[in-house]
Parts: sequence; C-alpha cells; structure tokens
Amino acid sequence: MSDDEIMEAVDQALREHGYAELTMQDIADESEKSKSLLHYHYDTKEDLLVAFLDDLLSDYEQRMACRDGRPPTERLVEFVARFVFTPEDSGREQFHLALLEMRSQGPFNDRIREQLERSDEILRSTAAEIITEGIDSGVFEEVDPERTAALLVATLDGARTRQITLGEANETYTRTVVEQALTQIVGPILEEGVELPDLDAVLADLDRDE
Amino acid sequence: MSDDEIMEAVDQALREHGYAELTMQDIADESEKSKSLLHYHYDTKEDLLVAFLDDLLSDYEQRMACRDGRPPTERLVEFVARFVFTPEDSGREQFHLALLEMRSQGPFNDRIREQLERSDEILRSTAAEIITEGIDSGVFEEVDPERTAALLVATLDGARTRQITLGEANETYTRTVVEQALTQIVGPILEEGVELPDLDAVLADLDRDE
Repeated sequence: MSDDEIMEAVDQALREHGYAELTMQDIADESEKSKSLLHYHYDTKEDLLVAFLDDLLSDYEQRMACRDGRPPTERLVEFVARFVFTPEDSGREQFHLALLEMRSQGPFNDRIREQLERSDEILRSTAAEIITEGIDSGVFEEVDPERTAALLVATLDGARTRQITLGEANETYTRTVVEQALTQIVGPILEEGVELPDLDAVLADLDRDE
Repeated sequence: MSDDEIMEAVDQALREHGYAELTMQDIADESEKSKSLLHYHYDTKEDLLVAFLDDLLSDYEQRMACRDGRPPTERLVEFVARFVFTPEDSGREQFHLALLEMRSQGPFNDRIREQLERSDEILRSTAAEIITEGIDSGVFEEVDPERTAALLVATLDGARTRQITLGEANETYTRTVVEQALTQIVGPILEEGVELPDLDAVLADLDRDE
C-alpha cells in the first residue's frame, strides 16, 4: 500500500467521521487494506494523523514552490483565493472541520502542535516572501512583510473557521472576507497604477486539491 | 443557587476540562451544589452549555451597549483590543480553547450553532454600528460598514484561534494582528487629521471579564 493511498483514506475518513471519534478501523474501511496492515505502518492513530498533517503541509509547500516564478500580484491573489469555499465545497468544509477539532488539541499534544506550528510558519513565510518580492519589484509599497503576512493569515483563517462552524447560514463568509482583504488590506499597499488580477479568474484556475 | 453561580462554575469547569470531556459532575465540583441540583435546573449538559453561551453573549451585548456614548474611534479600538491576549491571560486562553472545541460541533448541533450565529451577528453588528457612526460623524471614510465589520471580525477571530492553538510559541499573535489591523485596516479609513487612541491605554482601561 503506497503512502498516497493511506493518506487518501485518512482524508476521506476525517471528512466522514471528524477527528475526535475517528478510529483506525474507519481509516481501514476507506482503503482496500486491513486495520492490522495500517498498524504495521503506524503504531497509533496519532502517528498516522501526524504523518497525514506532515504530508498535507509538504504538498502545500511543493505546490507553492512550483508557482513562484509568476508575478507577486498574481501569487498573492492566488494565496488568498485558496481559502475561499464555494457553496459546492462541502467536502472541503468537512475536512477543515476535522482539522479544527485537531487544532483544539494543539495545546495538549506536542506532536500535533509541532505540525500546527509548521503550518503557521509555512503560511506566513509564503505570504511574507510574496510581499517582499512585490516590494522589491516595485508593485507593493514598503510595508512590513512579516506583520502584513500575519494579518492576512489570521484574516483568512478566521473567515474559514467562521464559515465552517456557522454552516450554511454563512456559506459566503470566506468569499466576502477574501474580497474585503484584497480591497482593504492589499489594495492600500499597491503602488500607483498596479492592478490585481480578477479573483474569479484566479479561482477558476486554481488547483485546490488539499 | 443563582444563575450567576452556576455560570461561574461552568466557566471554571470549561477552563479546567475543556468541552469534549466535560461532565455535569465536573461542573458541580466547581460549585457548592450537587450534580442532582444542577440536573434539576438543566436536563442535560447541552442545556447547561447552551444557557452558558446565551448568558455570555447577553453579558457582551450589555457591556457594549453601556459604552456606546463614546467616540467611534475609541469604541473601535476597544472593540479590537478585547481580542488581545497578554502572556498573563492563560485562563482566558483555556476558556477560548474550550469554546473552539464547542465551535467545531456547530455543524452537528443546532442549538450550539444558533448561539454561534447569534455571537457572529452581535460581533459583526457591533463593529458595523461603530463604523457607521464614525462615517456619519466624519471620522471614517465611506467604506461598506457590514463588509468592513466582517473583515475585522474574521481577522480578530483568526488571530485568537492561532494564538490559543499554537500555544506559547505564539503568545503575541493577537497583539501583533490587532496592531496590524489598526494600522492596515482601520488606518486607511480614517479621515485626514483623525487619530486613534493608543492601544496600550485602551488595554489598560479594559474590563475584560468574559
């Protein structure tokens, strides 16, 4: 059984069962292999979930690295667009809900917290790097890249958390906040004459298999 | 037993045990009354927690209403300052961690979700009302109050969630993001010559018993 198959099974099982009540059996049920084979590769459910988070983050890093040849305005819009949920994204909402459960265990579980810290570091350094490149190439004004990145990441995370926990009543929360972040956070740091690519066009192009 | 005493006991028990593993006995242990007396007032743990959330929100509403005679710049800084955790706030972090666990149950529990929706509505309408008043009195530029409020609330929520889940490694996350939100979201909407009150002064004055 390849790692990819196992990770696919974890992903599916998390969407269906959430984090707190997930069992190794649930994960085995999503693959063609047995629970004992899973245990052969991963001692505990925690080992498997930590490996899953690690895999997820490495994927994200790789995807971001592939795209770093393009203009910083495009990369920044894509960075924020990745957070948008559309009304059709119910599978992604389930997934992020399971992640949220896992996140609330951060303070009690060192290995999960290490992955959360790595995730935070990757997100913030990706945004800061895009902003720095934009400043260097004259499209963004001289803001503090690290602090602006922290602001953006917090904003996008908050929008996502609110959308997934509030359910259908707020199915456009991330979309609204992403639009406002582009208007009210990114807009004011654009040098004169610089324009951002259209959010809908970026969303249509986006490969969001997370 | 007054409602206040019960709610105080729920608050304390949530901080100590978190949400998922909380029992009626844990709550009773925090008060001077018995578990059976708690059950006399509240059939289930869920009933009690829903009443607790309801109480919390009513308190917040009341506190906000008391302060609505002051200048909108002051009220807006206070609104965002309420989200800041200082390194001494470990009790509040525990409390918000328990709330986060509860929030991840939103999609599966109608009564919890109703309280979350009410909370979202109160936060966003409070911010929108302050912004509208600021526009009307000429201190803020003509932004969309509802969308700006959604942006601010998402930002503050995201900063808080990140700080509490990442633990001590990020004990100044909310502080950094609140400062940046004032600089990069509120700053650009101030009319010329208008200044915001100092965040530290507002923090020192703040009555944050939530």
